[in-house]
Amino acid sequence: MTTTEARPSTRVAGRFRERLDAAVESNNSLLCVGLDPDPDRIPIGVSVTEFLTGVIDATSEYVCAYKPNAAFFEQYGDEGWRILRDVVAAVPDDIPVLLDAKRGDVGHTAEAYARALYDWVGVDAVTLNPYLGIDALEPFLAYEDRHVFVLCRTSNPSAGDLQDVMAGDVRLYERVAELSRDWNSRGNVGLVVGATYPEEAARVRAICPDQLILLPGVGAQQGDIDAAVGAAVDATGRGVLVNASRGVLYAQPFENGCAVGGWAEASRDAARDLRDAINAAR
Amino acid sequence: MTTTEARPSTRVAGRFRERLDAAVESNNSLLCVGLDPDPDRIPIGVSVTEFLTGVIDATSEYVCAYKPNAAFFEQYGDEGWRILRDVVAAVPDDIPVLLDAKRGDVGHTAEAYARALYDWVGVDAVTLNPYLGIDALEPFLAYEDRHVFVLCRTSNPSAGDLQDVMAGDVRLYERVAELSRDWNSRGNVGLVVGATYPEEAARVRAICPDQLILLPGVGAQQGDIDAAVGAAVDATGRGVLVNASRGVLYAQPFENGCAVGGWAEASRDAARDLRDAINAAR
Repeated sequence: MTTTEARPSTRVAGRFRERLDAAVESNNSLLCVGLDPDPDRIPIGVSVTEFLTGVIDATSEYVCAYKPNAAFFEQYGDEGWRILRDVVAAVPDDIPVLLDAKRGDVGHTAEAYARALYDWVGVDAVTLNPYLGIDALEPFLAYEDRHVFVLCRTSNPSAGDLQDVMAGDVRLYERVAELSRDWNSRGNVGLVVGATYPEEAARVRAICPDQLILLPGVGAQQGDIDAAVGAAVDATGRGVLVNASRGVLYAQPFENGCAVGGWAEASRDAARDLRDAINAAR
Repeated sequence: MTTTEARPSTRVAGRFRERLDAAVESNNSLLCVGLDPDPDRIPIGVSVTEFLTGVIDATSEYVCAYKPNAAFFEQYGDEGWRILRDVVAAVPDDIPVLLDAKRGDVGHTAEAYARALYDWVGVDAVTLNPYLGIDALEPFLAYEDRHVFVLCRTSNPSAGDLQDVMAGDVRLYERVAELSRDWNSRGNVGLVVGATYPEEAARVRAICPDQLILLPGVGAQQGDIDAAVGAAVDATGRGVLVNASRGVLYAQPFENGCAVGGWAEASRDAARDLRDAINAAR
């Protein structure tokens, strides 16, 4: 069967964290751009792949990473999975790719997810859900050159339903941060903390001084950027991936349902401005 | 683009719970058969689709539902997604299909996952992860004819890492069970409780007397089946989907790496025996 043909298990050689640090340095950027195709917002006459690779070409000198979210590809069915793989392959080799997949399943099943995301899609890192404990993470952690980002305090309004539950004398998200230090024995476990909760980001950074933090949900206001980035950076002013998706991807305003020309340039300008705003907050 | 063509949003009309109850009655069965294709265990010369549809044809009179797990299809890449959709479409209309996907993401992204799983794949129910709270569930709950099963106490060894954390005077999985009663305002929220933890299943049933429980991880021993099923059934001796995957799917022993003939018949016999063992425990 064609499905079982051998495929490269690594897009690019080298450990994620070292590759990320190199991209942060060379582009002077903590900006991670989310790649979330929305059928209602892609310019008429442009395919999903053309749109996303166009944005990548226009922004790659201003970012440290790209973060496609699996959901936005899966809504296109099997074709979406093919597009996802093509888009990941189109990212320049010196920029790592993190797939926002939020997977979490029991051991045998987690192994199949790891094969799907690391071996078939070919990304350098993934987001995972901690609710099932270490079993669900281990098959991913065994790929020592890749990195996982465990959901800790998410950016959504109902994040606190479970994550703020008092677990003894700490909240559940703090317990997850504590556990993540044990899970990090190979040095490849980071955390996801929503930019909408700067106080919680500061708590997580205090618990985990050296691990990477993925910070989604950052707004356009300099004040919000200052609060979130200031709380999440490590002692060296790094250790954070600040993710922006729609603000960069759909920077070009629509008119009568169609994007006017220059969408790639608009994304480039938005990425550069956001990179600079983030650097002002480091 | 072909990806945006209109697709049927429902495989079959009717509410999941009513369709499930009808299948439970007509087949006198609480057995749910997991459809998890393993490249190393499918008979030589048989395609994934032929294998799974063969098992469905052989077992459909003994089950109340089928449960493909997304991970085992995703490991085949885009082709796996096409196979998943074909296999779901091949299930007889009177047997509902539950996709074990364990998704969980913020609102806008959860909407895309709901479109992917309900509109494109076309399943009748899904499993979801509760770590992000109600925001991550709501886009799925809005499909009132479908059903979601929220992870509560999973079957794996490290389930307790988070799920047994004391949250006030109850454990976290009990808190999830309590929350699920509020989330169930439309009557379409069930829970996942591993058959490996009968005491916890009894606790969840006490908290949620009327909701469906999906019980994965059931073993082949009658004693284990008695304990798990006895703890999870509702007051009417129903309300449970007892899932078995590998014990039915790969019932035919392998010889020298190849399955000997009669794999479909072996799956049929395993499903019938397991259905009967479950009924003895109701």
